[in-house]
Amino acid sequence: MNTENAPLKAALAASVTEIEAALDAVLPQEEGPEAPLYAAMRYAVLGGGKRMRGFLVLEGAAQFGVSRTSALRVAAAIEMLHAYSLAHDDLPAMDNDDLRRGKPTLHRAFDEATAILAGDALQAHAFAVLAHEDTHSDSAVRAELCLRLAQASGPRGMCGGQMLDMLAETSSEPATESSIGRLQLLKTGKLIEFSAEAGAILGKAPVQQRHALSAYGRELGAAFQIADDILDATASAAETGKATGKDAGAGKATLVGLLGLDRARSQAERLAEQAARHLDSFGDRADLLRMLAAYTITRRS
Amino acid sequence: MNTENAPLKAALAASVTEIEAALDAVLPQEEGPEAPLYAAMRYAVLGGGKRMRGFLVLEGAAQFGVSRTSALRVAAAIEMLHAYSLAHDDLPAMDNDDLRRGKPTLHRAFDEATAILAGDALQAHAFAVLAHEDTHSDSAVRAELCLRLAQASGPRGMCGGQMLDMLAETSSEPATESSIGRLQLLKTGKLIEFSAEAGAILGKAPVQQRHALSAYGRELGAAFQIADDILDATASAAETGKATGKDAGAGKATLVGLLGLDRARSQAERLAEQAARHLDSFGDRADLLRMLAAYTITRRS
Repeated sequence: MNTENAPLKAALAASVTEIEAALDAVLPQEEGPEAPLYAAMRYAVLGGGKRMRGFLVLEGAAQFGVSRTSALRVAAAIEMLHAYSLAHDDLPAMDNDDLRRGKPTLHRAFDEATAILAGDALQAHAFAVLAHEDTHSDSAVRAELCLRLAQASGPRGMCGGQMLDMLAETSSEPATESSIGRLQLLKTGKLIEFSAEAGAILGKAPVQQRHALSAYGRELGAAFQIADDILDATASAAETGKATGKDAGAGKATLVGLLGLDRARSQAERLAEQAARHLDSFGDRADLLRMLAAYTITRRS
Repeated sequence: MNTENAPLKAALAASVTEIEAALDAVLPQEEGPEAPLYAAMRYAVLGGGKRMRGFLVLEGAAQFGVSRTSALRVAAAIEMLHAYSLAHDDLPAMDNDDLRRGKPTLHRAFDEATAILAGDALQAHAFAVLAHEDTHSDSAVRAELCLRLAQASGPRGMCGGQMLDMLAETSSEPATESSIGRLQLLKTGKLIEFSAEAGAILGKAPVQQRHALSAYGRELGAAFQIADDILDATASAAETGKATGKDAGAGKATLVGLLGLDRARSQAERLAEQAARHLDSFGDRADLLRMLAAYTITRRS
């Protein structure tokens, strides 16, 4: 481990524990006649994942002295949204994956119908958590969080990106840097951007600081995605807890395939540096976010 | 046609046209690289359906002088939510239906992956519409709408009911009136209840009137579901625009199967009367809602 990263790793590990507890608290208990649904929702969300999106919420919120309870509920909502998207992406009709976060995928552990349904329920529940007054006493904040999550994950965000991903697999047109960039911005970038922005919304931050965090999240997300593609091309499943080498196998166009490993790496580095630069107006409190940008492109899982 | 119903039928027909236009306005246009997703979303929602949920929103809102624009956006949001649930219920892993509203189901017209994704996007978009300031200038109203829609459609609402429906198909325990009642309350009742309540939220109605509309919607939803089961047992696919006789074919437990047609009919009648009685404190403006309760149990499609 790089010793420079020690504070980040400690903070990440602590936030994983906190976010896990927050998720456990907001998810329905496995009780009553609908318990199998709740079991599937919990399986899809709990006990795995780096919680990078949740960490971004917590660290963004920390810039503005937001209460930890508020920040953790928003982190939990975004992680539920993210978990639903993974569960649906893994379905036989989509990527048909068997392994996720080192465990059988949701439809493997349960069945396909339950996996579709638990994903649907997780999406609804994410909005229920954001819209609840326990998340913030100001309804304007709650409505804004709902709006931005819906935009980041909806037809012009994550779902739009997933459509591009599906289309790319059968398209006869060669992928370009621009088409891959759009795909990744929508599919993963928008939600990461919102995760970074959410703390500013919670803290009713001035628009300039809110935009700075959005921009940080946008560049971080782009760097993260290239790093993910590099990992897919170079790491083992044991390291990442999911199938690797998939992109090349599926003939999936990535920047790694298009630019080669070296140029993809320099681009990720450039993006990570740009991301950190958006935090220049923030003080020491943003150090963990700065470290995260650097770490994102050097991680091995 | 029963002449008593003429004003209701005219109002229903007018609201279908208005809601269709509102849906067209809020749905993404089929443009840009993600157009196939938008086409699937539009196919799933436009050009079909009785729009009963939307009509409930409009008539509920009319009790409190809510602007038509606000009411129509909420009606559109609920119809998008409803359409996503139908698209997912129709999937091969769920009910595996080929016909819906007289047209091929979404996964038949497109493909399974697109049907899952368009459903996901419709759910997100419903929240985006509710949370947007075009829907209401008061953020407390927008947050409350998001919260109630998420609750009505989430793990303790519609998704919970769908789980019970799936479990009932393989359960060795015989269904009871109570277990069927819970299933139907969750699967369809909660969203119908919210549809009736939404106008009161938009109109910032006194709590008593809001509760009266909720109660109306709850009983109406229960009556509607029994009427639906009666239709499934007695009507043809040509009349209803979807496969019928399915419940008996699938060995699905319904109140019709449990109580027989006659007792199921009297129960639906009793519920419809109870529903109307919740409107006693409302004036003539609620006449269409009263007529709807009576019509719900006599319709043939």
